[in-house]
Amino acid sequence: MELKQYLLEKRTIIDQALHEYMPQMSGPKEELFKAMGYSLFAGGKRLRPILCIASAEAAGGNHEDVIPVACALEMIHTYSLIHDDLPAMDDDDMRRGKATNHIVFGDAMAILAGDGLLTEAFKVMSCPELLKRAGAERFQRVIEIVAAASGPHGMVAGQALDIRTEGKKIDTGLMEIIHEHKTGALLKASVTTGAILGGASEKDIKSLDDYGKNIGLAFQISDDILDIEGDSEKMGKPAGSDIERGKNTYPAIHGMEKSKIILREIIDNAIETLEAFKERAEPLRQIAEYIIERRK
Amino acid sequence: MELKQYLLEKRTIIDQALHEYMPQMSGPKEELFKAMGYSLFAGGKRLRPILCIASAEAAGGNHEDVIPVACALEMIHTYSLIHDDLPAMDDDDMRRGKATNHIVFGDAMAILAGDGLLTEAFKVMSCPELLKRAGAERFQRVIEIVAAASGPHGMVAGQALDIRTEGKKIDTGLMEIIHEHKTGALLKASVTTGAILGGASEKDIKSLDDYGKNIGLAFQISDDILDIEGDSEKMGKPAGSDIERGKNTYPAIHGMEKSKIILREIIDNAIETLEAFKERAEPLRQIAEYIIERRK
Repeated sequence: MELKQYLLEKRTIIDQALHEYMPQMSGPKEELFKAMGYSLFAGGKRLRPILCIASAEAAGGNHEDVIPVACALEMIHTYSLIHDDLPAMDDDDMRRGKATNHIVFGDAMAILAGDGLLTEAFKVMSCPELLKRAGAERFQRVIEIVAAASGPHGMVAGQALDIRTEGKKIDTGLMEIIHEHKTGALLKASVTTGAILGGASEKDIKSLDDYGKNIGLAFQISDDILDIEGDSEKMGKPAGSDIERGKNTYPAIHGMEKSKIILREIIDNAIETLEAFKERAEPLRQIAEYIIERRK
Repeated sequence: MELKQYLLEKRTIIDQALHEYMPQMSGPKEELFKAMGYSLFAGGKRLRPILCIASAEAAGGNHEDVIPVACALEMIHTYSLIHDDLPAMDDDDMRRGKATNHIVFGDAMAILAGDGLLTEAFKVMSCPELLKRAGAERFQRVIEIVAAASGPHGMVAGQALDIRTEGKKIDTGLMEIIHEHKTGALLKASVTTGAILGGASEKDIKSLDDYGKNIGLAFQISDDILDIEGDSEKMGKPAGSDIERGKNTYPAIHGMEKSKIILREIIDNAIETLEAFKERAEPLRQIAEYIIERRK
C-alpha cells in the first residue's frame, strides 16, 4: 500500500462529497455560504474523514458506509478552526497559508460561518440515507458520539481550558486533559464512528477506539513539536507561535527530546492495538507513522 | 383551560429537564458550564419547548414524547441569543434584564458557551431514549428538521442577512425572508417536531406545520411592535433599540397601524389551521392569542 496514493484517493472522495453537501449559493445566502466554503475548501488534509474511512475499512466496511459522518467531522473541525482564530480567541490572521475567515469576511460573518458549519454537520449526519444504510442503533450511536466529542464535554471544553490557561504554568495532568479534549476527542470519534459504521464487533470497536485515543494524543504532541521545528512555509503559519503566546505544549513542559520519545511510544501503542485487523488496518498503521513522518 | 397555569406547568417540566441535561460542574469544565447555565437559566419563557409540547398534545401525545427535543430547542435558542449579543454582532449589554453573557464571561467564553449549547442540543436529541420512544423514522426526522431550521439554510442565514442589511433600506420581500429564517424557522420546527413525536398523521403534521409558520411570523412582528411600544422594564432591554440600530422591522416598513392589522390576520390564520384538532389544540390557540396579548 502506498499511503500517499491512499490519502489522495480518499481526499478526493471527501472533497467531492463536501462540495455536494455545501454548494455555492446565489441570492440572500450567498455570502454566508461563501464564508463557510472559504474555510471548508482551504486545503485541509481531511485527516478526520480519512481516519473515519480507514477505520470503517479496518472493520470490513468501506467509504460509502461513512460519507455523511466523515463529511460532518470535517465541517465540525473547520468550524472549530474558524472560531479558534477569532480575535476574541487565538486572534490568528493566517491559517494554512491563507488569511483566516474573519480577516476576509469580518468577525460577525466568521462567527456565523462557524455556527453554520457546526449545525450543518448535524443536518448532514441525520439524513435518512445514513439511517437506512447503518440501521437505527448505529445511526443513533454515531450522532451521539460526534456530538459528545465536539461539545462542552469534549472539544469545546478543551478550547475553553486552553484559553483560560494561556500564559499560566500548568501541570502535565491538566495539559493532557486540554489536549485530550481539544484535539483528541474529535480524532478519536472519527475512528470510533468509522468502526461502528463499518460493522465492527464491540471488541473491535474497543480496539479501534484505543487506536483513536492514541492517535489523538500523538497528533497533538506532533503539532506542538512542529510548531517549534516545523517549516513556517509548509505549515502556512509562523513557527514558534505557541511559545510566543505562552501556550502549554509538550515540549514546553517535557522538553523536546522527551516529547519525541513520548510521541514514538504513543504511535507504537496505537499500532499495537491494530494487530487483530491484519492487512485491513494497513492504512491506519501508515497514518500513525505518518504523524511522525510529517515532521520531516 | 387557564393559559397562565398551563405555561407555568410546562415551564417547570422543561426547567427541571434542562437542569438535568446541564448540571453544574466542578473542576476544569466549571467555568464553561457556568457560562452556558448563566444564559440557559436567565428567565427565558421557554416558548419553543412549550410549543413543542403543546403540539405533541394536539397530536395526541404528551410532554414525555418530546422532552429531549424540547430542551434541545431551548439550548439552540439560547446559543443564538448569546452569539447575537456579541460585540461583533448586535453588541448588546443587556438581555432579559441581566448583563449579557460576554459582559459577564468575556467574548471568548461567550462564543464557546454558545458553541457548547448548540452542540449539546444535538447530544441531548440523539440519546438512545428518544430513539426507543419515537422509533427510528421519527427520530431521524426530528433531528434533521431541527438541524435544518437552525443552520445555514435557517436561523444562521437569517442572522447573517439581518446583520448585512442593518441600516440599509430593504423591500418587504427580503424583510420577510430575514424574519422567516431568523425567528420563524426554529419556532416552526418546534411545532413540527412536536407534531411528529406526538404521533400526528401526515395531514395533521401539515396543519401544525402551517400553524408553526404563522406563529413564527406573528412572533417576529409582535417583537418588532414591542420594541417600540413595550415597557423597557418588562422587556429587560431598552425600548426603541431596533430603530436606533436601523433594523428592518414591520413597523418601520409598514407603519404601526398596518403592522397590527397584519399581526391580527396572521394570528387568525394560525388559529384556523387548528380547527380539526378540537379541544386538544386549546393550548396552541391560546398561545397564538397570547402573542398579541403580551403587548398589553
